[in-house]
Amino acid sequence: MRITEFAAAMGTQVANLGDDFEIKGITTLDAAGPGDVSFISSDKYLSQAASSAASALIVPAKASVASHPSIPLAEPWAGVLFLLNHLYPENRFVYFRGIDPSAAVDPSAQLAPDVAVGPGAVIGPRVVIGGGSVVGPNCVIGPDCKVGSNCALNAGAILCAETEIGNHVILHAGAVIGADGFKYEKVGGRLAKIPQVGRVILEDHVEIGANSCIDRASFTETRIGAGTKIDNLVQIGHNVTMGRSCIVVSQAGIAGSCKIGDGVIFAAQAGVADNIRIGNGVTIAARAGVKDHLPDGVVVIGQPARPFREGSKIIMAEARLPDMIQEVTRLKKRVEELEKKLAPGG
Amino acid sequence: MRITEFAAAMGTQVANLGDDFEIKGITTLDAAGPGDVSFISSDKYLSQAASSAASALIVPAKASVASHPSIPLAEPWAGVLFLLNHLYPENRFVYFRGIDPSAAVDPSAQLAPDVAVGPGAVIGPRVVIGGGSVVGPNCVIGPDCKVGSNCALNAGAILCAETEIGNHVILHAGAVIGADGFKYEKVGGRLAKIPQVGRVILEDHVEIGANSCIDRASFTETRIGAGTKIDNLVQIGHNVTMGRSCIVVSQAGIAGSCKIGDGVIFAAQAGVADNIRIGNGVTIAARAGVKDHLPDGVVVIGQPARPFREGSKIIMAEARLPDMIQEVTRLKKRVEELEKKLAPGG
Amino acid sequence: MRITEFAAAMGTQVANLGDDFEIKGITTLDAAGPGDVSFISSDKYLSQAASSAASALIVPAKASVASHPSIPLAEPWAGVLFLLNHLYPENRFVYFRGIDPSAAVDPSAQLAPDVAVGPGAVIGPRVVIGGGSVVGPNCVIGPDCKVGSNCALNAGAILCAETEIGNHVILHAGAVIGADGFKYEKVGGRLAKIPQVGRVILEDHVEIGANSCIDRASFTETRIGAGTKIDNLVQIGHNVTMGRSCIVVSQAGIAGSCKIGDGVIFAAQAGVADNIRIGNGVTIAARAGVKDHLPDGVVVIGQPARPFREGSKIIMAEARLPDMIQEVTRLKKRVEELEKKLAPGG
Repeated sequence: MRITEFAAAMGTQVANLGDDFEIKGITTLDAAGPGDVSFISSDKYLSQAASSAASALIVPAKASVASHPSIPLAEPWAGVLFLLNHLYPENRFVYFRGIDPSAAVDPSAQLAPDVAVGPGAVIGPRVVIGGGSVVGPNCVIGPDCKVGSNCALNAGAILCAETEIGNHVILHAGAVIGADGFKYEKVGGRLAKIPQVGRVILEDHVEIGANSCIDRASFTETRIGAGTKIDNLVQIGHNVTMGRSCIVVSQAGIAGSCKIGDGVIFAAQAGVADNIRIGNGVTIAARAGVKDHLPDGVVVIGQPARPFREGSKIIMAEARLPDMIQEVTRLKKRVEELEKKLAPGG
Repeated sequence: MRITEFAAAMGTQVANLGDDFEIKGITTLDAAGPGDVSFISSDKYLSQAASSAASALIVPAKASVASHPSIPLAEPWAGVLFLLNHLYPENRFVYFRGIDPSAAVDPSAQLAPDVAVGPGAVIGPRVVIGGGSVVGPNCVIGPDCKVGSNCALNAGAILCAETEIGNHVILHAGAVIGADGFKYEKVGGRLAKIPQVGRVILEDHVEIGANSCIDRASFTETRIGAGTKIDNLVQIGHNVTMGRSCIVVSQAGIAGSCKIGDGVIFAAQAGVADNIRIGNGVTIAARAGVKDHLPDGVVVIGQPARPFREGSKIIMAEARLPDMIQEVTRLKKRVEELEKKLAPGG
Repeated sequence: MRITEFAAAMGTQVANLGDDFEIKGITTLDAAGPGDVSFISSDKYLSQAASSAASALIVPAKASVASHPSIPLAEPWAGVLFLLNHLYPENRFVYFRGIDPSAAVDPSAQLAPDVAVGPGAVIGPRVVIGGGSVVGPNCVIGPDCKVGSNCALNAGAILCAETEIGNHVILHAGAVIGADGFKYEKVGGRLAKIPQVGRVILEDHVEIGANSCIDRASFTETRIGAGTKIDNLVQIGHNVTMGRSCIVVSQAGIAGSCKIGDGVIFAAQAGVADNIRIGNGVTIAARAGVKDHLPDGVVVIGQPARPFREGSKIIMAEARLPDMIQEVTRLKKRVEELEKKLAPGG
């Protein structure tokens, strides 16, 4: 694709263009060389553009970049995404077609004709997989799972029995969906494992990171809403229901039976106690620990998590704590002095 | 099984029974429909019972529920467990029998006749596996491992070489038992890896969550006591010995060489430093960070972890810290005023 | 190997030797029995030596141990390491040779003649693997990966496409190298996944723990420097560059685009925010949360992470906070009393 074709595809023109050229790649300002397009996602990076060896830049709509041919876009990321998808086709690493001879697919499984099953993958009885889905090498799909269309299960991802995932779902390597929830009760004087007979449902366009775990429900369902994106090494407990378009960053953990709204952001290493209700549009800061229900729209920070303003004040105050303890000791002494002076006969 | 049969099996009768019926399922009050049994595990949930569409309820022994036929039990969970086990047989998802032709079992391995080895599983030389155990799809059991009877290794679980597990042990998908402990020493001016030549022993009835890791010992053994239950994404370092009936919740981490008693609870995301001794019956709150030895029976909270009362006081006090800093500033001013008044000539 | 041969190999002699003997094992003071060598890595453990049943002890160079034949070494760990390597050869658990018939190796892959590929392993197109490397059972190596010589990929480890690892690299079971970084941008009103087209490079002598994840870069590379050792369940985000000889302990997480120097230590469960620069020789304490750039050589502690002295003071001061709040309340009352006395007419 030539730079002028790219601009036309985005509905715009190349400003400041010398010769048209074939686009070789898209990369960062620093890494770009001749033939590459780079990009500036926001005006604040404009000053870094001049020194880039890129042959053209995608820039914010009203930005003026004298140094390079530029493609102005209201959403620079839209252009970056377009080029990435053009230059790096989604399934470029899918080298197997149909069912690899080393895969073990149960005869009762129903796979759409264009499903690709990689070497060593195992697909259990009564599994149904929709068109365009890819099951990577050494994946395991347990009995009675349903997988929608255009899903990508990367190497070693595991769907435990009865898990249901929608369309355009991506599971990264080693993700485990539908393992037993963690539930024991004292019965007859010892801890008894309570069988977990519910399931996990991942709605459309959900993405689950490498080695993350989402547990099946005790009785009903654990549900991750459409468009929600979950990073690596995240734990989601049984019976959790999470809304649409949430973001859960690496190593966060959400305990069992939480009810979470839409558009909630869990930053890295955050934790949420069990049975917590979290409204829509909530943001939970990195490493925050949530123990109480949270209404729509709040931002919380700290351990225990508190509203941002309050939590920030406490964190700043902590830095002054050692000085303050000394100050209190001094004040105590001064008050004693004053008391002595005012005592009868003082 | 009919509801009257179930009651009889539990040694009791159905109170308030209309027609006898065949039990279709067991589930939550909300999810239950006609033919289903639901349950109330404690009196505090009694008020939620009336609106359930369940056909009968398991209730605490002395509870009176006018709205439904009810089965009163001293331990309601005992009834729930009975029905779950009846309706959902433990091995209902084990669709392979004997050794799947796609599994790679070393000729020197000794498997009891009724062991089931799933597609793609790999079993190394000199492995011994007891009767009734199931090795899931794509599991790997390294050389010289010993697996007891009636164990369940779910898909992709990995036993590294020389690991020994007892009877009725459950490993969830992706668990890794017996990887090298993390040990380096400066030798000749560079960090040298110290080979880890000890092993891991999981005693009877241990359960290990998805993608959790338990490292082999440096020289001797890492041991998890009978009946201990470990959740997902947990890390147990080398040389740890943990007692019986402990609970380790998701994403907790226990560093090397800790000695842990019986019945200890590690809540989610807790952490314990290396070489710590923890007594029996200790509870470590979620996200607590333990750096000191803990005697029997204590409950600790916070980072660093402190006894519950002390730790709670500190956490509550932190909320008042910003106000207090202002108060101290005001007090200082007031003391200054007083000092001025009392100064000679004031 | 006899004890005198071992001493000679280390360039020294056995002090206090009775009969020469064949070395049976090397283990801890407590676990050692007749025929075993044990060791004292530092003078502070000398008092524990007397009761050991070991037949000989490796001791620090100038230590005097009357109770046992002893091999004095300037670096006792050098002797321990020598014996471990002698008694437990590195590849003692590699029971497969060449390419196991159940492995799925793409015909375009180029494996050095002595590469060992275990049962169920999957190696994609155009992969190159150097001499002496071992690919464990059920490992997956994606298309276009490069693996150096003498690497060990333990069972179930996964290299996603285009990952490059150097020589003498060790990946433990379930490690995932090169999964997509976590990157979404609002495009056309919805969150769009930004394809991650960079790669991961692990330099020579890197070791990655079980179930740890290192994400591929957005555009360029995620790089782990030579000799860096990473423990289990660690998350390294996309675009991170880490220097040489770093130590990252279990469950630590480093967010995207951090630039980390040489010899940095991340203790367990530490976290680092994205785009942070960390100098050489920095130490980050267990569970510390780093949000700011850190210059060479600092030690930080706490959440948020602060320099050790400052952070320790705060942590100690927190313990006094509840008492101090009471003290301030008392002081306030006393100041009020004083003010009353000094008021006109007081």
